[in-house]
Amino acid sequence: MEQSYEAFLQYQSVSGAVKKEFLYKIAENIENLGDHLLETASLETNLPIGRFQGERGRTCAQLKAFGDLVTEGSWVEAVVDTAMPDRKPLPKPDMRKMAIAMGPVLVFGASNFPLAYSTAGGDTASALATGCSVVVKGHPSHPKTSELVAGAITQAVHDCGLHPHTFQHAGGISFEIGRTLTQHPLTAAVGFTGSLTGGRAIFDYAQKREVPIPVFSEMGSTNPVILLKDALVHRAPEMAKAFAGSITVGVGQFCTNPGIMIGVKSSPLNHFISLLAIELSMIPAYKMLHEGIYQNYYAALDKILMDKGVETVYHAQEKEAMSASPVLAKVSGDTFLANPDLHHEVFGPFSMIIVCENRIELMHVWQKLKGQLTTTIMGTDHDLEVNKDLIDIAKNIAGRIVFNGVPTGVEVSNATVHGGPYPAATDSRFTSVGMDAVKRWVRPICYQDCPDALLPEELKNENPLGIMRKTNGAYGRSPVKVELS
Amino acid sequence: MEQSYEAFLQYQSVSGAVKKEFLYKIAENIENLGDHLLETASLETNLPIGRFQGERGRTCAQLKAFGDLVTEGSWVEAVVDTAMPDRKPLPKPDMRKMAIAMGPVLVFGASNFPLAYSTAGGDTASALATGCSVVVKGHPSHPKTSELVAGAITQAVHDCGLHPHTFQHAGGISFEIGRTLTQHPLTAAVGFTGSLTGGRAIFDYAQKREVPIPVFSEMGSTNPVILLKDALVHRAPEMAKAFAGSITVGVGQFCTNPGIMIGVKSSPLNHFISLLAIELSMIPAYKMLHEGIYQNYYAALDKILMDKGVETVYHAQEKEAMSASPVLAKVSGDTFLANPDLHHEVFGPFSMIIVCENRIELMHVWQKLKGQLTTTIMGTDHDLEVNKDLIDIAKNIAGRIVFNGVPTGVEVSNATVHGGPYPAATDSRFTSVGMDAVKRWVRPICYQDCPDALLPEELKNENPLGIMRKTNGAYGRSPVKVELS
Repeated sequence: MEQSYEAFLQYQSVSGAVKKEFLYKIAENIENLGDHLLETASLETNLPIGRFQGERGRTCAQLKAFGDLVTEGSWVEAVVDTAMPDRKPLPKPDMRKMAIAMGPVLVFGASNFPLAYSTAGGDTASALATGCSVVVKGHPSHPKTSELVAGAITQAVHDCGLHPHTFQHAGGISFEIGRTLTQHPLTAAVGFTGSLTGGRAIFDYAQKREVPIPVFSEMGSTNPVILLKDALVHRAPEMAKAFAGSITVGVGQFCTNPGIMIGVKSSPLNHFISLLAIELSMIPAYKMLHEGIYQNYYAALDKILMDKGVETVYHAQEKEAMSASPVLAKVSGDTFLANPDLHHEVFGPFSMIIVCENRIELMHVWQKLKGQLTTTIMGTDHDLEVNKDLIDIAKNIAGRIVFNGVPTGVEVSNATVHGGPYPAATDSRFTSVGMDAVKRWVRPICYQDCPDALLPEELKNENPLGIMRKTNGAYGRSPVKVELS
Repeated sequence: MEQSYEAFLQYQSVSGAVKKEFLYKIAENIENLGDHLLETASLETNLPIGRFQGERGRTCAQLKAFGDLVTEGSWVEAVVDTAMPDRKPLPKPDMRKMAIAMGPVLVFGASNFPLAYSTAGGDTASALATGCSVVVKGHPSHPKTSELVAGAITQAVHDCGLHPHTFQHAGGISFEIGRTLTQHPLTAAVGFTGSLTGGRAIFDYAQKREVPIPVFSEMGSTNPVILLKDALVHRAPEMAKAFAGSITVGVGQFCTNPGIMIGVKSSPLNHFISLLAIELSMIPAYKMLHEGIYQNYYAALDKILMDKGVETVYHAQEKEAMSASPVLAKVSGDTFLANPDLHHEVFGPFSMIIVCENRIELMHVWQKLKGQLTTTIMGTDHDLEVNKDLIDIAKNIAGRIVFNGVPTGVEVSNATVHGGPYPAATDSRFTSVGMDAVKRWVRPICYQDCPDALLPEELKNENPLGIMRKTNGAYGRSPVKVELS
């Protein structure tokens, strides 16, 4: 971390253009790893090569998108309030503000996305975009993939002539390393993607420090789906197909996996459940990421399926070690409400339908859900029109509300929110995916009565970078006219 | 908190126009309290009536400024990324994002600003502006002032026909009340202004909850001032006058009080120190806010002035109980570096000059400072030009850098940062003063493929509120053109 801090002191002042070159170079170097990277990732995760073609594309596009963001420059949210020397009773000073990088960022990669949410994933890309140096604690379940990607980043550091410790990679399986790095006085912030247990532990270490630091842990959720009446009547077959895919994509190892689906008792709901079971039965068992996740999946299943009132709808026998089959269960609304154990995420290709007695019970279930990354509402225009209250509640429990789609597949956009109220994330005010992921690593600095020549480019009168600014309350890219008094 | 949450569920949906009416009404009701409020505050704090005329003006202006901010509406940072149904390999969904209120906010008022940083201060005003309900734990050192202001807010709640528990006031001196409210499951966030001990304790309670919540504790700092060479040569008399005022304003009970001043050993520095001592000697003793602060001031003074190497430059004898006189001390750079006790804030009309052997030592002292609300640089244009490295370091330790001014007197502007790296505040990414204070109480919500009719006004295609938005990466107030596919 000493080295990372030294690198930060240089890297924080690097221009947007250089950071863009660096981020693009990382993407290029990752692409240059070719099939070897895809094969390594596939071997280490039991996921097919094709999946990593997509994930690599997403990872590189994300790196480039952050490069574009920081070159355009408006992301610093520059604000200029000019002086009013004649104001009574006191003169008003000139105040200017912008976002700056906080310091060395520690990143814990996720096991389920060894490219897009790991060594060169969204946390690393967004932190490097802001001017923070980065130390990645590689995930022990894909050490070779992580090494390869780390090599691509290190090469890019070299290619761009940056301080050699702008990026560092710590391997090893020891949990102690992660704790030690979190507790290091020079660590400025932490990004984590993974389990509630791991994410909360890192958060706790960080908050107990003499100097507490921000931790953004994204810890998954059950991503509840509401199935409304007319949609069930008119679209059951296509919905069953779509959700069978969403429940099983990546062997269910997605943090946006739809683990809970909620509807009111009715024959269309029963019909949907039957169709979903049939769709799931056509999806074979696949190997999970690693032994630990596999063990946890079946342990969690054993527990939840034995819980009182939980009925197994579909449960194939697994064919071989490490392989997981899709499982569908159902439970009544009152049983769900009475048993907090049923509210936890089961990480794997599992979903549970909550069959509510009536709409009142459905509202009750909806209101009692924990914090979520996503909620999904399946409904016709009429369904949505008469269920506006559901949307209001959804807003208060989730980071993203999906209408008539599946929660899996997080789009990297300007508007993405991948986060949500705890336990989905440790701070619902931020996102780990999308362009605003940079906000986790920056803090505002205010210059009061600073001579123009000494201001950062972003805040100078002339606005040499041409960025969007808020000047005396008005948005625009114009230079500041300063009256000489 | 149950009541506050009930109120929040209604208040979160109230329009910007209604929130403006409410905030303006609070200001009006506070003004209507007339001299009685000023006299009560003066009696409870030992500060003069004139001071509260200013503080009331600031408090009411701040309430109105937040009202204006939320009526204009762009503060929600709306982002629209429209769908690309034909994108390969996967269609891109329509994603739209904006900031929404988090829930009931708990506010701990400060003892030193019973109006501007307390019951109806910046925390309350900014939280109410976002659509959060507020519960204020009134500061026990000004209970009557707090009751009066709380009455003005409650009256405004009634005047505007809002849910009666949109604002609540908890008095009492018990520390337990604050802890219980912080730990309540329905509390969504906390704002605190006060001591490091108090602010850290509240922070710790909040982070140890089953569901951790954001706490913004602003805990003051030593606000170091660098005195550069030419400025000392040319401007010593005016600087001595200005800083004597800044050190003693409000009997030194300002969180931006300049408690440390740093220069290189020289006869101009000695001259400045003599002038400052003379200026301070002309300022009489005044009563402090309350017995506890008075006791703490003299205990801290006794300790620091007894520390090895600390030399008392000016120290009048206090004239009467509860009264504090200005005190000036000096210490060498190496003594300061060797003794961490000297880095703590002494809350009161005290400042300590650090006399460095040379510029290298000055840089060393500058780099070793803890997190600060402010740093101040006193220098001529030439001084600043040749000391750019000092500004770079200042940026990494403070929330606000003041050039050739005093740190006391925090302007409420769009560009204000009142916060900074720990221990100045518990999260350097936010500010408690200025328009961006709202950011502490909101989180982003993303609507994916939501029908236009069900979107909040801020995100609808037509942009009916005419707010600034980022649409497909471009800033503007135009409606969104959606291609029908």
